[in-house]
Amino acid sequence: MTTLYLIPTSLGPTELATILPAEVCAVTASLHHFVAENAKTARAFLKQVNVSHPLSIALQEIQITELNINTPAAELSALLDPLRAGFNVGVLSEAGVPAVADPGANLVRLAHAEGITVKPLVGPSSILLALMASGLNGQSFAFHGYLPTDASMRSKRIKLLEQRSQLENQTQIFIETPYRNQALLEAMLSNLMVKH
Amino acid sequence: MTTLYLIPTSLGPTELATILPAEVCAVTASLHHFVAENAKTARAFLKQVNVSHPLSIALQEIQITELNINTPAAELSALLDPLRAGFNVGVLSEAGVPAVADPGANLVRLAHAEGITVKPLVGPSSILLALMASGLNGQSFAFHGYLPTDASMRSKRIKLLEQRSQLENQTQIFIETPYRNQALLEAMLSNLMVKH
Repeated sequence: MTTLYLIPTSLGPTELATILPAEVCAVTASLHHFVAENAKTARAFLKQVNVSHPLSIALQEIQITELNINTPAAELSALLDPLRAGFNVGVLSEAGVPAVADPGANLVRLAHAEGITVKPLVGPSSILLALMASGLNGQSFAFHGYLPTDASMRSKRIKLLEQRSQLENQTQIFIETPYRNQALLEAMLSNLMVKH
Repeated sequence: MTTLYLIPTSLGPTELATILPAEVCAVTASLHHFVAENAKTARAFLKQVNVSHPLSIALQEIQITELNINTPAAELSALLDPLRAGFNVGVLSEAGVPAVADPGANLVRLAHAEGITVKPLVGPSSILLALMASGLNGQSFAFHGYLPTDASMRSKRIKLLEQRSQLENQTQIFIETPYRNQALLEAMLSNLMVKH
């Protein structure tokens, strides 16, 4: 039985001992095949793992296949070929937890359809860490990915999320790229009804 | 500056190296004060940490104060006293990640109001691990805690969540206690419209 491991990574060169259990590094070091959102980032991560947990084969011999938003659905199945041939495979996101805010979920679904074992490993998720640290309701929360970039659609969405937050006492979480933060914060200030 | 650390734990006697980064164990071992959902479970966890990361003082001398759903709001502030006196404090949930599906969030909010640094640490969350492993949409998801136990209210809620899942392509996550699993699965079978 082969296993598809979902391996969390860090955003940038964080000390691995602060963000990953030793066992996650050990599993990563044992693998010869990876599906990664970005091959270059994946190689940098494997080099970091290699410092504390020597890779079982040379980095150049490790097969890294990319899976990102540009990957056609028809090419997904081939990414599982190593598993069919008897090898375990690791999935690496660009940063954080695979299959949450990245294209890995479709691969996981395909693996389930073939009866392949899927094993999620423990690691950092900005969504969860932000929720923990927020002091907001953690008994009910929703994650929405990115808000629309169009100003009028974004305003509508912000109003809808505020309404839901009030009606259901549900914490609303979304992400934004750094260079759009200012515009998003301004849109929130001008659209939210409740001021704190 | 003192810090309120949010420390994830395991459900039961899992090998810590599989679920916690070494640094999380090191931080835990350094603390003399904890706020825990259950003092007994917290002590068992500290004993486990002690094996790889010796505690900085004897377990009997460590102060563990309980915070659970029965804790009156008026008693919350006193839980931050060690921080005001210059000591770091760790928050321990009964299992999993503090301040997500437990009463820790109110304490975090109070800490923010006093300008106390809050630091969430990496560890296992059943919600996140289940989402990763599910193959369902991780770009949009909601967590609802427990569904109502009353049969008619539970049916209504299941129908509402299915509707939202279909309209918004939003993954719906909730938790249940083992002894109610069978009743919940039967309620889902008889209330969900879409059969897979």
